[in-house]
Amino acid sequence: MQSVGDYLLLRLQEIGIGHLFGVPGDYNLQFLDHVIASKKIAWAGSSNELNAAYAADGYARCRGAAALLTTFGVGELSALNGVAGSYAEYLPVIHIVGAPASAAQEEKLLLHHTLGDGDYAHFLRIAREVTIAQAVLTRENAAAEIDRLLITALREHRPVYLFMPTDVAEAPIQPPIGTLTYRAESLQSSLDSFSAAAEALLAEAESVSLLADFLADRAAMREPLHKLVTATALPFSTLLMGKSVLPEQQPGFVGTYSGAASAGDTQRHIEQRDVVITVGTLWTDTITAGFTQHIDPLRNIDIGLYRCRVGTQTFSQIAMKDAVAVLHQLATRYGEGWRDVQALPPALPELTAGALSQNAFWRIMQDFLRPGDIVLADQGTAAFGAAALRLPEDVTFICQPLWGSIGFTLPAAWGAQLACPARRVILLCGDGAAQLTIQELGSMLRDGLKPIVFILNNDGYTVERAIHGEHQRYNDIAQWNWTQLPQALSTRGEAQSWRVEESAQLQEVVKVIEQTSRLSLVEVMLPQLDVPPLLQAVTAALDKRNAS
Amino acid sequence: MQSVGDYLLLRLQEIGIGHLFGVPGDYNLQFLDHVIASKKIAWAGSSNELNAAYAADGYARCRGAAALLTTFGVGELSALNGVAGSYAEYLPVIHIVGAPASAAQEEKLLLHHTLGDGDYAHFLRIAREVTIAQAVLTRENAAAEIDRLLITALREHRPVYLFMPTDVAEAPIQPPIGTLTYRAESLQSSLDSFSAAAEALLAEAESVSLLADFLADRAAMREPLHKLVTATALPFSTLLMGKSVLPEQQPGFVGTYSGAASAGDTQRHIEQRDVVITVGTLWTDTITAGFTQHIDPLRNIDIGLYRCRVGTQTFSQIAMKDAVAVLHQLATRYGEGWRDVQALPPALPELTAGALSQNAFWRIMQDFLRPGDIVLADQGTAAFGAAALRLPEDVTFICQPLWGSIGFTLPAAWGAQLACPARRVILLCGDGAAQLTIQELGSMLRDGLKPIVFILNNDGYTVERAIHGEHQRYNDIAQWNWTQLPQALSTRGEAQSWRVEESAQLQEVVKVIEQTSRLSLVEVMLPQLDVPPLLQAVTAALDKRNAS
Repeated sequence: MQSVGDYLLLRLQEIGIGHLFGVPGDYNLQFLDHVIASKKIAWAGSSNELNAAYAADGYARCRGAAALLTTFGVGELSALNGVAGSYAEYLPVIHIVGAPASAAQEEKLLLHHTLGDGDYAHFLRIAREVTIAQAVLTRENAAAEIDRLLITALREHRPVYLFMPTDVAEAPIQPPIGTLTYRAESLQSSLDSFSAAAEALLAEAESVSLLADFLADRAAMREPLHKLVTATALPFSTLLMGKSVLPEQQPGFVGTYSGAASAGDTQRHIEQRDVVITVGTLWTDTITAGFTQHIDPLRNIDIGLYRCRVGTQTFSQIAMKDAVAVLHQLATRYGEGWRDVQALPPALPELTAGALSQNAFWRIMQDFLRPGDIVLADQGTAAFGAAALRLPEDVTFICQPLWGSIGFTLPAAWGAQLACPARRVILLCGDGAAQLTIQELGSMLRDGLKPIVFILNNDGYTVERAIHGEHQRYNDIAQWNWTQLPQALSTRGEAQSWRVEESAQLQEVVKVIEQTSRLSLVEVMLPQLDVPPLLQAVTAALDKRNAS
Repeated sequence: MQSVGDYLLLRLQEIGIGHLFGVPGDYNLQFLDHVIASKKIAWAGSSNELNAAYAADGYARCRGAAALLTTFGVGELSALNGVAGSYAEYLPVIHIVGAPASAAQEEKLLLHHTLGDGDYAHFLRIAREVTIAQAVLTRENAAAEIDRLLITALREHRPVYLFMPTDVAEAPIQPPIGTLTYRAESLQSSLDSFSAAAEALLAEAESVSLLADFLADRAAMREPLHKLVTATALPFSTLLMGKSVLPEQQPGFVGTYSGAASAGDTQRHIEQRDVVITVGTLWTDTITAGFTQHIDPLRNIDIGLYRCRVGTQTFSQIAMKDAVAVLHQLATRYGEGWRDVQALPPALPELTAGALSQNAFWRIMQDFLRPGDIVLADQGTAAFGAAALRLPEDVTFICQPLWGSIGFTLPAAWGAQLACPARRVILLCGDGAAQLTIQELGSMLRDGLKPIVFILNNDGYTVERAIHGEHQRYNDIAQWNWTQLPQALSTRGEAQSWRVEESAQLQEVVKVIEQTSRLSLVEVMLPQLDVPPLLQAVTAALDKRNAS
């Protein structure tokens, strides 16, 4: 016999989770005793719950799944925006809520962290809107419900909500029997039909392109797709949201696709083909500059998480991995002529000397990146500027363009660095965004981590200025001394920081960073209204729609 | 004709709101143009939405109402915990959510800040759990719904949710006709019945006590109750949640009541009376040390927000102000013998020299407080320690013991200082708590405000240690250099800060603070396991219940 809490920890470990993010609270302390006692799950205490949820999301993007622990009411609601982001962008985060003891709930006691009305289901009802499955654990259902929720999270790639009263966490249950089974399987007849329909289209095609996006990443299709484009160097691209799922140094890569706002010839290279294959895409506004993609459904093979489409025909019960395997076979058979040697990515602008500009900054970043880096770019000039980068091999790129919650990447960088301690983590974050979640700089320092943080200081919310209110006071923020923050947020004194205003300075600083091993913060001074061209196109579309 | 946004701003101003807290986002920028243009409503831009919600709550506690502006999805969910706190603790906060344009919603477009499923009602359904009324504004219903929600918020003392698409904010409507009508009125026959029942009990009573709490504050009963206890010096007290609603320097004040955990003789002075009058109380766990109050319902006159009770009889449709007026008359008629000259508040412990302790800290605070101060004490050693203070005249005391969201008071102090620029604001906040919401120190400095901030540094979550896990690692936090933070979070360089370890140092520092006019931060070093006696009693009750 073991406790429900221990059972849960065993299952988390089984699905590859090595850390639990969260904040202690009076209804989760008993469970936390088991976490601390665990040799396999490390406690990653955060400064606040929203930051913990963001960190868990970042961890899930690197490790496939993550776990988050908050207390009832105050804690779980603070985390909600982070969990909703994981829901919108398909990350399996196991949200565990330490709840008051079952007896207190049954008596409808007016405990703290309740709304004072004896109703203990308010927050469960809230969780239903932003998680794919929920369970109120009891002594009797705990094992079954924990298993059901973890399987659902992994199958659906989405967060789940585990409500665990203090007494249930301590209740004795049998250890797990066997392992969790959650691999997606295809219906063979449906897969065969899809294969035939896809073949009919591809056998006739003289030119074919491939566009993959974030859902391909979530379904672990990076490696199979990499093999596909290596075997058949057809023109390929990703949208911003899935950037890094395809290898950008490989022949065939034509630059990040953003519909009509794509740089150079990217749009033409992708769209003007007899057949366009899309894998794991979702057409949302910011990554398409306001739905400016032009892909004829009749000449489109679309592979989704749970279904495929060829022209107007839809095939359900197909796992993405099986559909991609079919594609690989067809590309090998028919793809000899699909290569287009003129399909090249747009060139980055030349480096300019003197005061830093967005152009110069991204040029220097391009040279700074190394294979295997994890790069996080916050929604704003950072993410849209980073779209123009041509990533080295095996880089993981993290952004959040659908949910678009600014400040997300700073705690997510902490989560990513804990997930992958041996990889270099580079955070690109605006000053306005970093203010939302700055605390986790302290957590990174406490944990002895050494990410490289670039604060893009353009004096306020430049992404908002680009949408509306260019010179309005509401887009200003409090002025901080950014370079003092690593010292203020840690007594360990191990960080280094710089403020740079010129291209040459930044080049010098990144050289120093390459030669040292400390947490580094670089405050990059950028013109207030300097906006990457992609962001300009995107925000123009957004402002137009708001006024409609 | 004016815009819906202007109409809303006029109505906010009418109910005494002079500031709008929030964070700009791409679906509220058009409305923000009107805010900036307004001469009566000032924009108070926060670092993040949770902090903005806390600040609005603090503002409402000082000004009677507050307004909060966030963007759709990301912004509103980040603010949710703060809004829920306002709901639990009865603060009318008008939460305005800037939403995507009506046309985009109707088309179910996959816009950013949605969950990517075309469902625009997820967050409205969430808001239903933590606000008393909600409205989706259209061009047609805007005036009526704005009026309905503001009236409901003020009548019910609770937050409301105004969902305003970008196009609706700009739509033209007629200016307001007349003023908002929201004063609670009583049914005369019910009031008469209550009066007769109360008189029957009080006419026979030889000893009577009065216990008022937070709902009396929300219903603006501070002044009428003050007059009552001045006219009839019966023994009186408040619970921690409503501390400062009754005058603590007045004869009759017997110390803050906490059920069996009350200091000295406070419990006996309140409970052992022929009749106990309660006004605006809600028996929740932390303010009663786990429901240890002993008040015989048959000898209790209870005045609530919407109803009164005398013994077993309940009288509905009675406004608190009318019930208190009845009480005042009855106390004048029968109350001559109710005074008890031996009913005195417990004495504070003597000041000890040497290293600071909780006792010494609170002794020094007692001498530091001045009439008219606004004192905020965060949930933890701060709030429970402050319970022992005997507040000078006209002090407003702010804590959050029902919702109990740590970190609340730091942004709330910003809100309180904007609400009352002429009053001295004193913030008492633990180190663990302050880490959740530290950013707003920067907002205070940006706005040139000068609150006095005491960070009670006891090396982690001492309130949690007192509940469970005294030496557990999960109750540790990242070590910050607190005294460097004011400088790091502002380029204005106008703050002063100290770290104090001994009583004599703290006494020197508060002398300096009294003679200067700058934002002051004092890091007060306290023993990790030193816990005010009240908190010890409360947390013992909580741990017992969690284990049940």
